[in-house]
Amino acid sequence: MKHFQRELDKIKKMILSLGALVEKRVHQIKQVLEDRDVAMANEIIHLDHEIDQMEVDVEEECLKIIALHQPVATDLRFLIAVIKINNDLERIGDQVVNIAQRVVSISKHPVVPYRFDYSVMADKAEAMLRMSLDSLVNQDLDDAIRVLHLDDEVDAIKNEAYDRIKTAIANGVTEDIGYMINLLLISRHIERLADHATNIAEEVVYMIEGEIVRHGRLD
Amino acid sequence: MKHFQRELDKIKKMILSLGALVEKRVHQIKQVLEDRDVAMANEIIHLDHEIDQMEVDVEEECLKIIALHQPVATDLRFLIAVIKINNDLERIGDQVVNIAQRVVSISKHPVVPYRFDYSVMADKAEAMLRMSLDSLVNQDLDDAIRVLHLDDEVDAIKNEAYDRIKTAIANGVTEDIGYMINLLLISRHIERLADHATNIAEEVVYMIEGEIVRHGRLD
Repeated sequence: MKHFQRELDKIKKMILSLGALVEKRVHQIKQVLEDRDVAMANEIIHLDHEIDQMEVDVEEECLKIIALHQPVATDLRFLIAVIKINNDLERIGDQVVNIAQRVVSISKHPVVPYRFDYSVMADKAEAMLRMSLDSLVNQDLDDAIRVLHLDDEVDAIKNEAYDRIKTAIANGVTEDIGYMINLLLISRHIERLADHATNIAEEVVYMIEGEIVRHGRLD
Repeated sequence: MKHFQRELDKIKKMILSLGALVEKRVHQIKQVLEDRDVAMANEIIHLDHEIDQMEVDVEEECLKIIALHQPVATDLRFLIAVIKINNDLERIGDQVVNIAQRVVSISKHPVVPYRFDYSVMADKAEAMLRMSLDSLVNQDLDDAIRVLHLDDEVDAIKNEAYDRIKTAIANGVTEDIGYMINLLLISRHIERLADHATNIAEEVVYMIEGEIVRHGRLD
C-alpha cells in the first residue's frame, strides 16, 4: 500500500510538472503577443515535442499503475481524471503553438496600423489554467468553480474581439484582410485554451462530487 | 471471465451507439448547411443533451468495469481508449452544435449573394468519423491510417475556404462582414470535427501498435 501511495505521488508530480511546462508556454505566448516576438514564437513551435512526450509518459505511467495496483473508487477516478487532464494539457500546448504560428504569419504582413490588445483575455486564460491545476492538487471545489466563471468572461472578451475586428474590417482600416482574420483567429485560440482549462476544472468538480455521491451511498 | 467478456461487449455496444448518434448528427448538419435548415439546426441544438448523457454513461460504465474486473494489458488499454474516444465523440457533438448555431445566426442576416459550398469538406469529415469508428470495432490499422490522410485533405479545404472568403471580403462582395466571418468559422468547426475523428483514429493506432510492442516483448 505504501508502494501504491508512492506511485500516486509520482503521478501527481508528473502531471504537475507537465502543468508547469504548459503554464510556462502560456506565459511565453502572452509575451509573444505583446511584443510580436517572432524568435520566441519559433522557439515555442520548435519545443512542442517536449509537451507531447510528457503526455505520453503520464498516460503510460497511469496505465501501469492501474494494471499493477488495480485501484478502485477514489484512486481509480483520480487516475482516469489525470489521463483526461493530461490530454487537455497537451491540447493547450497545441493552442499555444497555433497562436505562435499566427504571430509568425502576421509578422510577414506589411505593417498594419491596427492592433488588438489580447492581454486581459490572455491573463484570464492563464489564471484559469493555474487555478484549474491548483484545484486538482488541493481537490478544491471553490477554485474549480471560479474557473468555470472566468470562462464566461473569456467568452465575453472573445465576442467583443469579434465585434471590434468585424467593425474594423467593415470600416476598411486595412486592405490586408488576412491580417485581420489572423487577429480574429488568435482570440479564438485563446478561447479554446481557456476551454481546456475549463475541462480540467470540470473534471476536478466531477471527481470531487463523484466522491460525495459515493460517500452518500455508503452512509 | 465470461462475465467480463459480456461487460466488454456491452461497452462496445454503448460506444458504438453513441458513435451512431454522433454520426447521425453530423449527417444532419450537412443537410442543415446545404438547405440552411434553421428548424433542423434548432432541433440539433435542443437534442445535444442526449449525447452528453451517453458520454457520462459510457465513462461510468468503463470505470465500473475497471474497478470490478481489474483488467490488464490489452483490455485495460481498450477501456482507456474508449474513455478517450468517448470524450472526442462528445466534442464532435459540440462542434455540430456550434455549426448549427452559426447557421441560425446566418439566417438572421439579410440575404447575401455569396455562398460557400461545404459539401465536399463535410462529406470527408463524415467519412473520417465513420472510418475511425470502423477502425475501432475491427481494430483495423489501415482504416485508421486512411483517416489520418483524409485529415490532410480537410485541412487543405479549410485553407482554401480561408483564401476564398478572405478574397471575397477584400473584393467587397458584401458589406455584411459578420455573415462572411460566420462562413469562415463554419469551415473551422468542420475542421475541428475532423480533428476529433483523427484523435479517435490515432487512439486506435496507438492501441494496436501498443499491442504489437507488447507482443514483441513477450516473444
